[in-house]
Amino acid sequence: MIILGIDPGTAITGFGIISVEGNKFIPIDYGCIYTESTLDLEKRLEKIYNHVNLLLDKYKPNEMAVEELFFNKNVKTALSVGQARGAILLAGALKGLKVNSYTPLQIKQGVVGYGRAQKNQVQQMVKVLLNLKEIPKPDDAADAIAVAICHAHFKQTNVRIRTI
Amino acid sequence: MIILGIDPGTAITGFGIISVEGNKFIPIDYGCIYTESTLDLEKRLEKIYNHVNLLLDKYKPNEMAVEELFFNKNVKTALSVGQARGAILLAGALKGLKVNSYTPLQIKQGVVGYGRAQKNQVQQMVKVLLNLKEIPKPDDAADAIAVAICHAHFKQTNVRIRTI
Repeated sequence: MIILGIDPGTAITGFGIISVEGNKFIPIDYGCIYTESTLDLEKRLEKIYNHVNLLLDKYKPNEMAVEELFFNKNVKTALSVGQARGAILLAGALKGLKVNSYTPLQIKQGVVGYGRAQKNQVQQMVKVLLNLKEIPKPDDAADAIAVAICHAHFKQTNVRIRTI
Repeated sequence: MIILGIDPGTAITGFGIISVEGNKFIPIDYGCIYTESTLDLEKRLEKIYNHVNLLLDKYKPNEMAVEELFFNKNVKTALSVGQARGAILLAGALKGLKVNSYTPLQIKQGVVGYGRAQKNQVQQMVKVLLNLKEIPKPDDAADAIAVAICHAHFKQTNVRIRTI
């Protein structure tokens, strides 16, 4: 199963594509989509949308998971992240994918095992689980891979519960 | 010149299309796009996007204007409106349209003439300017027409300044 994880933002959107084979996670691609603040907002959203579309076409993920906003951020941040999220969710929907959302708390629980984990602990776990020599860079890409791993774990748990 | 005005929201998105001929505003179409809360978020955004696309294809507006979020709303509302805005701005961008944003303050100034106008005064002005017998219903449709009128006024002012 191939999972596309996304950490949305108008300026920087992190993405991570992993392949899940049994209990193994294999990194396929990860990185960031950058948009210049000098561009009109709709053009920035178009760039994010087009890049996500490229990833969907290239890697044909079976599942997609997008980080949910951290609700104690401010209203301006919420609007900005919301707009990027809208463009990303739409890209998934137009390809017929169900898009799963996870809060930072769920991602920490899903990757490290507890919700109060430090950012660095999450990144270390991403490195270990993907069998990488270094923590994936930049941070937004590592965060996006964490979303994908979180989704894989939640899904495996559900499958396990269902098959018991 | 044909203008599409939009008042974005995940549950209800108002739209209003007007034709501007000199100082006259002619209503072409207005209404609301509703999405059921039982649908997955990405499906709701897809429905909004598809409907806005239909309007763009049918009426081929030259200009598009979308209400900007009211910044003293809460973070949850900001995220929700932001996602709908993202899908709407993207629809415009993919058709090569520049999408203009106006705050509620600018819309009141642009339609009624001053930023502290009451909601009902804005709606009355929409009725008068479009030469309608009744205030357009529902409210979100009237708000969307107000965005379109606001854009027309701002544009005329700019053109006038440039041609002096």
